Parts: sequence; C-alpha cells; structure tokens
Amino acid sequence: MKAALSSLLTSKSLSLHHSPSSLSRSIFHSKFLSTPPISLYPKHHANSTNFSRIHTAFAPIMAASYKPEQARAPPALPLPTPPLTKFKIGLCQISVTPDKPRNIAHARKAIEEAASKGAQLVLLPEIWNSPYSNDCFPVYAEDIDAGGDASPSTAMLSEVSRLLKITIVGGSIPERSGDRVYNTCCVFGTNGELKAKHRKVHLFDIDIPGKITFIESKTLTAGETPTIVDTDVGRIGIGICYDLRFQELAMIYAARGAHLLCYPGAFNMTTGPLHWELLQRARAADNQLYVATCSPARDAGAGYVAWGHSTLVGPFGEVLATTEHEEAIIIAEVDYSLIELRRTNLPLLKQRRGDLYQLVDVQRLNSQ
Amino acid sequence: MKAALSSLLTSKSLSLHHSPSSLSRSIFHSKFLSTPPISLYPKHHANSTNFSRIHTAFAPIMAASYKPEQARAPPALPLPTPPLTKFKIGLCQISVTPDKPRNIAHARKAIEEAASKGAQLVLLPEIWNSPYSNDCFPVYAEDIDAGGDASPSTAMLSEVSRLLKITIVGGSIPERSGDRVYNTCCVFGTNGELKAKHRKVHLFDIDIPGKITFIESKTLTAGETPTIVDTDVGRIGIGICYDLRFQELAMIYAARGAHLLCYPGAFNMTTGPLHWELLQRARAADNQLYVATCSPARDAGAGYVAWGHSTLVGPFGEVLATTEHEEAIIIAEVDYSLIELRRTNLPLLKQRRGDLYQLVDVQRLNSQ
Repeated sequence: MKAALSSLLTSKSLSLHHSPSSLSRSIFHSKFLSTPPISLYPKHHANSTNFSRIHTAFAPIMAASYKPEQARAPPALPLPTPPLTKFKIGLCQISVTPDKPRNIAHARKAIEEAASKGAQLVLLPEIWNSPYSNDCFPVYAEDIDAGGDASPSTAMLSEVSRLLKITIVGGSIPERSGDRVYNTCCVFGTNGELKAKHRKVHLFDIDIPGKITFIESKTLTAGETPTIVDTDVGRIGIGICYDLRFQELAMIYAARGAHLLCYPGAFNMTTGPLHWELLQRARAADNQLYVATCSPARDAGAGYVAWGHSTLVGPFGEVLATTEHEEAIIIAEVDYSLIELRRTNLPLLKQRRGDLYQLVDVQRLNSQ
Repeated sequence: MKAALSSLLTSKSLSLHHSPSSLSRSIFHSKFLSTPPISLYPKHHANSTNFSRIHTAFAPIMAASYKPEQARAPPALPLPTPPLTKFKIGLCQISVTPDKPRNIAHARKAIEEAASKGAQLVLLPEIWNSPYSNDCFPVYAEDIDAGGDASPSTAMLSEVSRLLKITIVGGSIPERSGDRVYNTCCVFGTNGELKAKHRKVHLFDIDIPGKITFIESKTLTAGETPTIVDTDVGRIGIGICYDLRFQELAMIYAARGAHLLCYPGAFNMTTGPLHWELLQRARAADNQLYVATCSPARDAGAGYVAWGHSTLVGPFGEVLATTEHEEAIIIAEVDYSLIELRRTNLPLLKQRRGDLYQLVDVQRLNSQ
C-alpha cells in the first residue's frame, strides 16, 4: 500500500496523468494570454444566487462523499439570472448559392422577416455566404477583424442587428486571418457590436466510403477556445456543426452557466438522418438547457447536400419546433424558467459523482 | 502575467480546483484499497494492439497541440480484442410479481429460452425478483456475498449460466450487505462464477409533480465504483437505470475499452417516452460502442409502472432491435467489427480537444 501510494506522488506519475495543474502551466504559456477571453460574467449577472436557489432542494439527499461539486473543475457556476425569461427565437434555414452578394441580401431579408415576427434572437446556418466546399472557403473568406469592406457579410449582420435591436448568432462564414482560414460564427448584440467570435474547434474530417467524405482540415484551421457569451437573451454557448458531436464542449458550456447552446450546422444526407436530431436532443437533455440548430436549406444539386431540419430543443430534450429541408423561418418561444423546472424535477447537478469522475474545463481552470 | 501564473501554483489554488492528484490522495485512503477492484485487463486481452491499429489512420490530420490523448485522464485505453466478434444477445423483458419464487422460476425460463435461440449473452431487467418499491427493497433483498440459500436469485443465475455455458448480466436485485441495501447487478461467466457486481451508483431520486416522484435513497445506498468486466463476449460496462443519465459513466467505460454497455433499467411512463431511447442512442453514438438495455414488462396495475421497450443499439446510435411493453425476449446479433468501422468513419477519438477539456476517471487514475 505504501508503495502504491508513493507512486501517486512522483513527478513521473503526475506528468503521465496530465493533471490539470501541470496541464495549466504549459497551455498558459502557449496561448492563453495571447487571446484575451471574452468576459464570461459581466456585471449585470453578478448577482445570480436568487435564480438558482431552487437547485438546493435535493442537496441533502446525496451523501457528502459523492462530492457533486467536484464533477466539474472548476466547480460548475450557478445558472445566472437571464435578462429576460421568455422570448422568441428565429431560425433562418435559408438557401445558399455561389453568388455572395445574393447570399448576403437573402440572409438580411430572412433576418428582417424573423424580426418582424417577433424574434429577439436570430440564428443563421453554417457557411451561409459561400458554397460548402474546400475550394470555396478560401475564396469566400472575409477578414472579420478588419471589418467594413473586408467583411461585407458581418458588416450586414452588425447593421441589421443594430437597426432591428436584436441579437444575431450569425451562423458561420469562412474567416481569413493572416494566412489561415477558419469556420467562424459571429455573435452581434442589439446595438450592433460584435460580442463574440467562435472559430469551429472540431474540424469536420470524416470518411464514410460511398456516403460522405470531407476533410475540412485541408483548408481550415481549428479554433483555439470555446465561446460563451452573455447577450440580451441569455448566456449562449456556441458550437459549429461537428462541434456538436463532442459532448464535452456542451458539458463545459453548461458548467459555465449557459442557458442556450446554438449550433449552426450543415449535417449531410448520411449523418443528418442518423444523428442530427439525436445529438441536439441529447445535449439538451443531458445538460438541461436549450439547444438551437440552424442548417442551410437543402440544394440537391450542390456539391455538399445539407440535411436541413433546423430545430429548437427544450431542456427535457423535447423538440419544440423543427422543419423539413426546404427554406423556412422557424419562430418559436424560449422560456428559460423551464430550465429551473427541469433541474428541480431531475436534480442531476446535485447527483453527479464527483468522487468517480471529473470534467476539467482547461481554459476556465487556467483563467482563475 | 507573473502574478496570474504564480496563483496557479499555490496550494490554495490546487485544493480549490480539485486536481486529480490531490483528489487521488484523499480517496485512496478512504476506500479504494478497502474494495479490491475487479481486474480490468486479464491476460488474454494483453495483446490488443492489432485490433486497434486501424484507429491511427486519421492521426496525422489533427495538430499536435490538440492533444486528443489528454481528453481522458488517464489516457483512453485502446479497444481490446474481444474473444469473439459476432454473437447473439438475448434481452429478457419479463414480468415481475410480488411472488419471489415465481419471479426466479420465470426468469430462469426466459434465460433458457434465450439460450435455446442462440444467445451467448443474456440480460435481465432491473429489480426482477421484487416489485419496484421502497417498501419491498429491504424485504426482498438478498445477501449476495453469502450466496446459497441467502441469495436464491443469484444462485439460480450462477447455476443456469454454468449449465447453459452463457454469460448473464443479471439485471438487478435488492442486495443486503450488513445494514445497507443496494440495487445490484451481478455478472456471471460461462462457468457459473460471479465475475462482477455493480451497485447502482446514481440513485433514482426524482420529483416531477403529478407525474413521477420516487426517492430510492430512502432505502438504498449508492455503490462506490464503476463496474467494467471482461467476459467471453467482450468487455462490458454496467449501469443500472438512472446511471444511464450520467454521460460521464459511459464516457469512462468507453475510455476503459468497453465494447458494450449494459443497462438494466425500469424507466417509467413519464421519463420512458421522453428519454429512454434517446439516452441509450446518445451513449452509443457519442462513445461509438454497443448499448443494450432491459426493462421489466409493463404491469399497468403495479405501484411503479415500467416503460418497457428493451433495446439494442449499435455504435452509430442506430436501434438494432427493440420491442413494445409486453413480455418479450429479443434475440439480436452483436458485431463488434462495427465498432472499428464506425471509429474509422468518424475518428472522434483522434479529434477530441484535450487542450480544452479532460474527463478524469478518478478511480482508474488512483489505481495506476
């Protein structure tokens, strides 16, 4: 027993096991300070204890040794009080063509229509200003940070969000940054400011022979950070398409207090029917929050044929609104009070076994 | 920057963040040595490299900085070579009554029928020897470790597995151990030996007013360890019912090299239609392995009405065989070569972002 115990304390053992503390140091130097994180916790969310009080109802039932708070490292944040509890979301499942100016005008029209129907949050599809292909990504890419004429797609999103006073999760477009191209989602606030920029962190490299083969990493670079942002319609975690497959990303967003996860995505005719609805329902049910997805409309003649079926899922994993594969603008109600209700019904947060498993959010751990 | 970096290294910081290494030491003392773990890696699985060779195909695509091997701590084990690739599984969705001797005889008959149809692995439902109620658990509980007359239910399972030369994942029964009662699944090998015993680690304490309220922790104690076992039909991770809701358990089983997860379970008429199929499909698709579930048949007159719908799910999250709520014996084929195929199609294991998240398997980390 002594030998076994002492082996846990050797530096070899610690290094082999990649403890978060040793992990922290290497990552800290390599990139964390070079890209300042978006502030997760603006002032208007600082007082979030009241809204999450109801969570404690089941706490005494589980024995102290289960340490549910240790199931996440750092411990999960309480759900913040959202700026509003109920609002309408608009999912714009629009068609995409090789004509970029047409795509921008078309997306603008869809956003305006969604807003006219009451949507305070509008979601666009993945790669809505360009055909989805490795040949097109570098050609259609825009320099988002330069802005203005260098990025007509995001300039439109900024303008329309300001004019309509809505929040836009702007699907994604190919982004050029230096000699790299990313698959990037921009989030605009109600006064037109760029609040967050998510670069797809899991590139779509799959090979199902005879069905679908696509290697995004031929032209794209993966992002370096999860993206969660406080907006006028709640705390939103962003993923792009293939990011949806990695349950860990949704889990760390939930632990950061997300109300809603938005996944612009273009699943295909093979993985769409197999997994599109399954994965978004699972992320919602497992993490007890809202999930919204938005796909391009299907174009059977395109090089990459999208599945469609943009969907809003509630915190019990229930499909609240969905559509087929044609162009459609889904307007549906989000009610964040249901998150509290479902977490009271099924108090998973208090029932996790932190003595058996722990999910480490590496960047949040490092930032503390 | 210096100040921030040094704060990562203080003992306060390490303690607050529950690093696996500090976590290790406290748990190590409290219980890990007192209950010897089931051996995960018997000799006939030691040479597993050939079977997992195909996984390396996509390795060079992801940049080294993504550190997919760090997404699990300790790093995920390669999938072991199973003793056989194809076999039939039998899921016995049987009725349960207050008459324990009848339940035992009835379960035996179902197992014999499944074996007669070629099943080499037979799965029983959760709590198959007793009504599902807090009043009954202590009354029907058996002392499994004492065996023989003290546990007629497991004595039957041992005998029938030996006589029929099959592996049995014996659903669950209430287990008495000292003054505690557990919800326990026993796994028997083809020569009748008890190979593993899983005590439900997540107790079913839920409250959906007007729909379903049940507090298992009124009478039951939760188990203290995940359970994974090498059998003649592959490496099997065990969960019982509510354990299915905790994706972390399935994730650590996958990282320990499971081919198949078995969940005896009795979801109810509220959570059954909402989540039963969703959760098992999600566990299978996310972890790219087989999932089998077995429920009691529905008895509309019982105090707790089970949903039924026992199911086998393949490693793409596809339902391979299922049933309604009546008594049924599902016989279906498992083909472990599909695990390799799906992991080649979608190389999720190589695409995880260990630089962003890490799931720690606390007990496996401590045992190394």
